[in-house]
Amino acid sequence: MMPMNSLALKYDGKVLSILDQTRLPGEEVWMESPSPETMVPIIRELKVRGAPLIGVAAAVQMGLMAEQGTNQPAFEKALMSLREARPTAVNLMNMLDRILSVSREQGLQAVPAEAQAIFEEDVLLAKRMGEHGASLIKSGERILTHCNTGGLATVGVGTALGAIITAQKQGKNVSVWVDETRPLNQGSRLTTWELNQNGIPHTLICDNMAGYLMQKGKVDRVMVGADRIARNGDFANKVGTYSVAVLCKHHGIPFHVVAPQTTVDPACTSGAEIPVEERKPSEIGAIYRDTKVWNPAFDVTPAELVTSWVLDRGVFTNKEDICGR
Amino acid sequence: MMPMNSLALKYDGKVLSILDQTRLPGEEVWMESPSPETMVPIIRELKVRGAPLIGVAAAVQMGLMAEQGTNQPAFEKALMSLREARPTAVNLMNMLDRILSVSREQGLQAVPAEAQAIFEEDVLLAKRMGEHGASLIKSGERILTHCNTGGLATVGVGTALGAIITAQKQGKNVSVWVDETRPLNQGSRLTTWELNQNGIPHTLICDNMAGYLMQKGKVDRVMVGADRIARNGDFANKVGTYSVAVLCKHHGIPFHVVAPQTTVDPACTSGAEIPVEERKPSEIGAIYRDTKVWNPAFDVTPAELVTSWVLDRGVFTNKEDICGR
Repeated sequence: MMPMNSLALKYDGKVLSILDQTRLPGEEVWMESPSPETMVPIIRELKVRGAPLIGVAAAVQMGLMAEQGTNQPAFEKALMSLREARPTAVNLMNMLDRILSVSREQGLQAVPAEAQAIFEEDVLLAKRMGEHGASLIKSGERILTHCNTGGLATVGVGTALGAIITAQKQGKNVSVWVDETRPLNQGSRLTTWELNQNGIPHTLICDNMAGYLMQKGKVDRVMVGADRIARNGDFANKVGTYSVAVLCKHHGIPFHVVAPQTTVDPACTSGAEIPVEERKPSEIGAIYRDTKVWNPAFDVTPAELVTSWVLDRGVFTNKEDICGR
Repeated sequence: MMPMNSLALKYDGKVLSILDQTRLPGEEVWMESPSPETMVPIIRELKVRGAPLIGVAAAVQMGLMAEQGTNQPAFEKALMSLREARPTAVNLMNMLDRILSVSREQGLQAVPAEAQAIFEEDVLLAKRMGEHGASLIKSGERILTHCNTGGLATVGVGTALGAIITAQKQGKNVSVWVDETRPLNQGSRLTTWELNQNGIPHTLICDNMAGYLMQKGKVDRVMVGADRIARNGDFANKVGTYSVAVLCKHHGIPFHVVAPQTTVDPACTSGAEIPVEERKPSEIGAIYRDTKVWNPAFDVTPAELVTSWVLDRGVFTNKEDICGR
């Protein structure tokens, strides 16, 4: 594989390095991942995160394994362990299934080029999504977003945040309301970091303030990413997305989901079939032994709350069109 | 004044002591407040909080000042500084206006008895609200609440949480979903503490998970407190309450506000007139200099989202009835 370089994933021709996103923004720590065995905990512990980026990181890791020399059974075993590292985002499964097919049909020697192609495609997909998403944004709009969906969530400009960044580069003078995004604070830790780097004016709020902001007429549009989109247009995304969607409906605010076509899972007929990962209570942090904690990492938003699905193929307002070709 | 004793406020006949709620649950630190000058920062910094409790604490402080010996001008000046300590909860203003009237009409020597009466009434009002609220709760219900509205927010059993605790004491076998309540975590710090003390099963969630929980059919009822109820039934409460109310409407879940009659402000014709305190950005904690923060401590829920107003006088489903006599 040729060297690859993105905000949170680098390959120098020999070593694959991952930016530990759990330590951002305080520290910029790069970790080497020499093998799928080292990548599994990196994914599980959210050191690498963002549905598209997880898929790319896993694919590049398998490209590296193929380059290092292995055999098909060991390769497939390692691939399956990576494929199960997190259950909700379908990009991980999609990218690894693609790698698996290539390894079976063309042999392991064809895998590095496929991994490289996946990296390069992700940049291109993000660019297209960014342009399609930006086309919806009018000058001066105040856009609310949840979680992090920028250059730390893909190897390109991002999904929802990519659209906002693209609009800003087009001179649209946008501003952003950033949901803190409990419990892991991807909004306050990561999205504010990216918005600062891009010089986009933004204001941090707690997740529970979004409704009041809408009531005051201060939100023109909401854009979020997705971890999996079902065939009927329902989608899973970072927990809290569903509440924002309901609030948008109540206030008549356009609500867009921005994701690559690779996030659409045609095998999933509705949101009810998307497996939602529940994570450990300590992420929220109960203080007493008798206090239980419920900590789903994602929630599911039904298609009827979506104004449009912004894919790399274009903007779709009809859920029948999202599966495409 | 005779000695008074509650979960977070004590008077031993000489010294007024306040439990520092910002240090709960880690530490149980009692602070002495010898004068209104010491009480103002205690209120401002949320060391004492909860609309009814703030009103009682301020009244008792003025009772103590009257006992210590002062003159009417000094008394009124101190009272006004206390009255302005926080803007949203009307109980503070209502209780101090009552103290002021007594001092003017009956003299300073009548103030301690009035302060004592305010303390005792708060216990009684909470008991009545608890009973009225509990009458709405069916056996086995799963009730969601936001912020802390129990024995740490009043000198009695509480408002919304008081109703839940009362229902449990009636053997109704309830369970509680506790919103974390960002940014100051009154839910995860204080409400879980009280529910543990009362042996009521409960589960902590992040504020942004309430919608998903409702979508899954796991919430039977929502009960919250209020800091001020306008004449038209709109009310201010801890920020995030409005979002919960919208989610309840979307899911057809009963939404009740539980507060003493003293929280109703007939001078306030609608929620738009309620002053909403904005607090310092550091409570949320932005990391970058160029990241702005919006931190309203409260939001306003319109009357049309309220299923019923539970006051000490009874349960009201018609907003025309809440002003009472």
